[in-house]
Amino acid sequence: MSVYLHDIPLAQAHSRLREALQDAGLWRVLGMESIPLDENALGRVTAEAVWAKSSSPHYHSSAMDGFALRADDTNGAQPSSPIQLLVIGNLPVQAQYVDTGDPLPDWANAVIPIENVESLDENGLLTKDIRMPKSIRIRASVAPWSHVRPLGEDIVATQLVLPAGHILRPVDLGAVAASGHQDIKVARNPKVAILPTGSELVPIGSKLKVGDILEYNSLVLAAQIKSMGGEPTRFSIIKDDLDMICQHVQEAAREHDLVLLNAGSSAGAEDFSARVVEKLGTLLVHGVAVRPGHPVILGLINRQSQIENRKSKIQNRKSNETTNTSHWTPIIGVPGYPVSAALTIDIFVEPIMAKWLGRRPRELPIETATLTRKLVSPAGDDDYVRVVLGIVGEKLLAAPLSRGAGVITSLVQADGLALIPSGMQGIEAGEKIQVHLYRSRAEIGKTILAIGSHDLTLDLMAQFLAEHDRRLASANVGSQGGLIALQRGEAHLAGSHLLDVETGEYNISYIRQYMPNIPVKVMALVGREQGLILRRGNPKGIKSLEDLSKSNVQFVNRQRGAGTRVLLDYHLKKIAIHPNSIVGYSQEEYTHLGIAAAVASGRADCGLGIAAAAKALDLDFIPLFNERYDLVIPKAHAESDLLAPLFGLLVDADFRKAVSQLTGYDVSVMGTSILED
Amino acid sequence: MSVYLHDIPLAQAHSRLREALQDAGLWRVLGMESIPLDENALGRVTAEAVWAKSSSPHYHSSAMDGFALRADDTNGAQPSSPIQLLVIGNLPVQAQYVDTGDPLPDWANAVIPIENVESLDENGLLTKDIRMPKSIRIRASVAPWSHVRPLGEDIVATQLVLPAGHILRPVDLGAVAASGHQDIKVARNPKVAILPTGSELVPIGSKLKVGDILEYNSLVLAAQIKSMGGEPTRFSIIKDDLDMICQHVQEAAREHDLVLLNAGSSAGAEDFSARVVEKLGTLLVHGVAVRPGHPVILGLINRQSQIENRKSKIQNRKSNETTNTSHWTPIIGVPGYPVSAALTIDIFVEPIMAKWLGRRPRELPIETATLTRKLVSPAGDDDYVRVVLGIVGEKLLAAPLSRGAGVITSLVQADGLALIPSGMQGIEAGEKIQVHLYRSRAEIGKTILAIGSHDLTLDLMAQFLAEHDRRLASANVGSQGGLIALQRGEAHLAGSHLLDVETGEYNISYIRQYMPNIPVKVMALVGREQGLILRRGNPKGIKSLEDLSKSNVQFVNRQRGAGTRVLLDYHLKKIAIHPNSIVGYSQEEYTHLGIAAAVASGRADCGLGIAAAAKALDLDFIPLFNERYDLVIPKAHAESDLLAPLFGLLVDADFRKAVSQLTGYDVSVMGTSILED
Repeated sequence: MSVYLHDIPLAQAHSRLREALQDAGLWRVLGMESIPLDENALGRVTAEAVWAKSSSPHYHSSAMDGFALRADDTNGAQPSSPIQLLVIGNLPVQAQYVDTGDPLPDWANAVIPIENVESLDENGLLTKDIRMPKSIRIRASVAPWSHVRPLGEDIVATQLVLPAGHILRPVDLGAVAASGHQDIKVARNPKVAILPTGSELVPIGSKLKVGDILEYNSLVLAAQIKSMGGEPTRFSIIKDDLDMICQHVQEAAREHDLVLLNAGSSAGAEDFSARVVEKLGTLLVHGVAVRPGHPVILGLINRQSQIENRKSKIQNRKSNETTNTSHWTPIIGVPGYPVSAALTIDIFVEPIMAKWLGRRPRELPIETATLTRKLVSPAGDDDYVRVVLGIVGEKLLAAPLSRGAGVITSLVQADGLALIPSGMQGIEAGEKIQVHLYRSRAEIGKTILAIGSHDLTLDLMAQFLAEHDRRLASANVGSQGGLIALQRGEAHLAGSHLLDVETGEYNISYIRQYMPNIPVKVMALVGREQGLILRRGNPKGIKSLEDLSKSNVQFVNRQRGAGTRVLLDYHLKKIAIHPNSIVGYSQEEYTHLGIAAAVASGRADCGLGIAAAAKALDLDFIPLFNERYDLVIPKAHAESDLLAPLFGLLVDADFRKAVSQLTGYDVSVMGTSILED
Repeated sequence: MSVYLHDIPLAQAHSRLREALQDAGLWRVLGMESIPLDENALGRVTAEAVWAKSSSPHYHSSAMDGFALRADDTNGAQPSSPIQLLVIGNLPVQAQYVDTGDPLPDWANAVIPIENVESLDENGLLTKDIRMPKSIRIRASVAPWSHVRPLGEDIVATQLVLPAGHILRPVDLGAVAASGHQDIKVARNPKVAILPTGSELVPIGSKLKVGDILEYNSLVLAAQIKSMGGEPTRFSIIKDDLDMICQHVQEAAREHDLVLLNAGSSAGAEDFSARVVEKLGTLLVHGVAVRPGHPVILGLINRQSQIENRKSKIQNRKSNETTNTSHWTPIIGVPGYPVSAALTIDIFVEPIMAKWLGRRPRELPIETATLTRKLVSPAGDDDYVRVVLGIVGEKLLAAPLSRGAGVITSLVQADGLALIPSGMQGIEAGEKIQVHLYRSRAEIGKTILAIGSHDLTLDLMAQFLAEHDRRLASANVGSQGGLIALQRGEAHLAGSHLLDVETGEYNISYIRQYMPNIPVKVMALVGREQGLILRRGNPKGIKSLEDLSKSNVQFVNRQRGAGTRVLLDYHLKKIAIHPNSIVGYSQEEYTHLGIAAAVASGRADCGLGIAAAAKALDLDFIPLFNERYDLVIPKAHAESDLLAPLFGLLVDADFRKAVSQLTGYDVSVMGTSILED
């Protein structure tokens, strides 16, 4: 049994899969079906070109409400010497009322709009019966075919209306209907089975025990498949049991066009996927040099055979067949980490779906952005890094998000995906990087990049700003990090609570030090309580900062540069406690909630942080200090349209109320101007 | 009864509607519902912010397959002085095998990946039982918390996961599930009734009589509403009968959030919409200064009252109500022309749907393009012009499409919508214009702009090119027009069949005359028959060009500059027939199919054109001449990637076969090089 994991380059994996599908007769539109022309046809892909069956209009049609006439009869009409045309009478009529869309009478070759005629009665006087007068008076000549929509103006029978492979939009449906069709032939939607496996998995919404993992990958995968135009089927969770997985895979392969086997694609003790594929068909690829997502499996399942037949040759099929009569069903072993799983679908499934539907593969627009932070990458891999994008000044900036493959929120927050191609070992801060955009440039232009110290108020601010057509993307690098980022022009604002231990003043001296020459506006956001976040019930009996030096107290610290860290060091110095005497002083977290989570999980006994974070995780809290948290905004940004809604929030009663309901916050300072250059 | 039509500026119409909806308590999210988190939630809009119920991971979790251990126990490990840790034994264990995702044992604070350890048996020798050895040997120290996903790495309980007003994407569903939710609160989809009215309307697919109009607007409108996130209901066609329309509108208003009353919105004899709105509610706007689409009606229907109550005041409603308890249902009288109808929905309905769903209104990206042709516009109107876009050289070019409001194919072909703002009477060729893009820049970069003479082969070429990731957009301006466009850098290629009456040669002398200094590549596309397109059965007994001068023969001509026109003039001169003696010589059509349509409709007895056009509309044909149709391609474009697939087609057997199956085409010359500078 060969359960191996050997990464091959992405391009090679693509071509190996493509060739196998070609050999299996599956690299083509899977099939077509005729569906009625209604709003459910939206988004379907034309399976063949649509040619017009009839013309539109299919007769010469009046383009206005008015009178049909012969253009020749109006020759010489002038304001001063009008011409009169008979509408009702015994003689052959010269004009006839027509509504917009009415057919032009055989004898007529033009229409004059009703507002350009005078309707006359039998006495030659103006009549109110403007549409059925005895005659009309005209004071200007009319050109032949004016205000007429000639037959075929829109569509001429036999012309191409839509090419094959076209994704149907609302107006397309109209044009197809206008050209005489009632139905349309579209590519059949590929059926995709999604099989979550893993004994540790539990359905979403379950009450969680330690070791349980919520199974939501199948949900994301199903939604991705649906958005690509496929029909997903989610199987129930399958335990880690080789035979059971084999049985379900074989069943799924028989009734679907593609099988996605989630997790078990690596080489661990319970990673059965490669073995399943070997047993039921052909393993093409196990491991691709792409991050996240390298332990991917590509293969084909023999849908008809017994296990014994699995070594039979892949049969060549003619590519013009329209239904899937292949003996083979492709299978993809999708890695278990949610980011890896989602990217695997984008990278490997989208091209297959595009081929099967006969449409173009989707391509994200690409832009060049300036990287805000150095990135290191393994040299042999194509490395995809989720980034937040923002336009600061004229520059498009890409700020890397968490690179953990388990951090699905990084995909939620991402504005794009930056690629570090294989061969590069990393990219320096300030260098250019290619970014595949998830959001339009217009949306990115509405993103406020906040970098600096984290505060729960920023989450609320993000929620309120969303209602004002702005998106707040915040990166947490601590107060000093935020000021440095502003100095480098990498953010619109920074949240900061840096205490000057000499003056007792917040932020100003630091701003002058870290951002000399940049005029700023500083506004107070909140006053907040800082204190010790403790385990519930405070089992170690911690009472003050002094207790941190006890050898049985495990501390968890904020990162260097964080305002809370400055505060801690200031007070430790005051009471002459040396950092070395604190167990866990070098253990760093980047947010208040990170500190609280570390304490809640038992990883630490206490940490310094804000009351709201303790409250959020239902922990004990000893208040120690009060501090002010300010927004530092370079003047150029403060005066921009982009930030206007943010200043609006600082005086918004609803926002104030929402913040004041968080534990340990004082909104009385909110909106106070601290400094204005 | 006041049925008036008085255009007001667009901004005023918007604000009048918005204020009326505010007064009626309808300018807010209509309502919310809780739906299960599955792929059907895709595209729905969050009705409130989603806050995390639980953390993810909710315990310290191993990030790799490997051994959990205490980092301290590995201090000092070196390649040359390894450290051995006990896995199984009577003493307290120092290492324990963990799979990815397994909880970290209480006593451990790091994980070492399995590939970095040596598994040993009871004799200290390497064992194959790598996951259950007696002990492991480690040759490097391990940092605390390495290869551990700490509690809350992805999501910390209480954090903001998604703001309200967010359109759900696949990864969002995963993040919401990961944060402990099983359902999600989304905005209720607005219900929209679509009522087609008009006695001349027939359902799509009907066999057509003269005067019948296919009713496909409701199809386009329903698809637009669906794509905006609404739930459309299409009513059956209603005859032009005021009472009947009133009855259906009142019924629709009772059960829907919005009523779209299609056609009858102008001021003609059968335009009842304004009267209906006045009768059943309040008419807010009749006529907006926007083209196409100016005869739009905006109003409110009193959904509960009898007609007598219609003058009751609009009641103020509290804006925080979550269900539609208003007495009022907005109604929009949508103009009848398909382009007007579709644009009315984009302009007036999209902002309402966005408000009702709590999402951002959709905005098309805007780019500046160079206009290829002069546009004239009424000064008082916002004028929307459909354009084809292409990148020629470095320039983004906008070529205007048909401006007829009845030409739905112009919306199908459009890459964007150019706006001539009210106040401007037009824009000159070569000037800049703002274009709202329907397609991405990447797609536009794949558009081949062909301008010049029309040939049916171009339709086939468009179809074949679509399969090669290219879009052929062709504008028909005649052969000379095409060469002039190439000279001005406004197209990638031109189709041309200009006979040099001196030399009998095609195109070359014209190319030198119209495009001096531009190196070109000229390839023969097809040889084709030109001749007289005649009514079926040839009732006038036309036999040759000489018969065109008969006074009872109505001719239809091609436009000046067209190759066919040159051909005609050449042969008329030869037989000494003066254009003045031909009835209809000045009546111009722009395509071969236009000529055929004019003959088929009886508007003319004959015209000069190609056999394929006669065949397409089942007309008689007398072949007269053979001519060559070439592709003229500036060398710079001929060598571009963009055009590579086109050259591929010229030697593609399937394409040749498809062209040869058109009547009157000779493919033997296809791909022959005529000129290469």
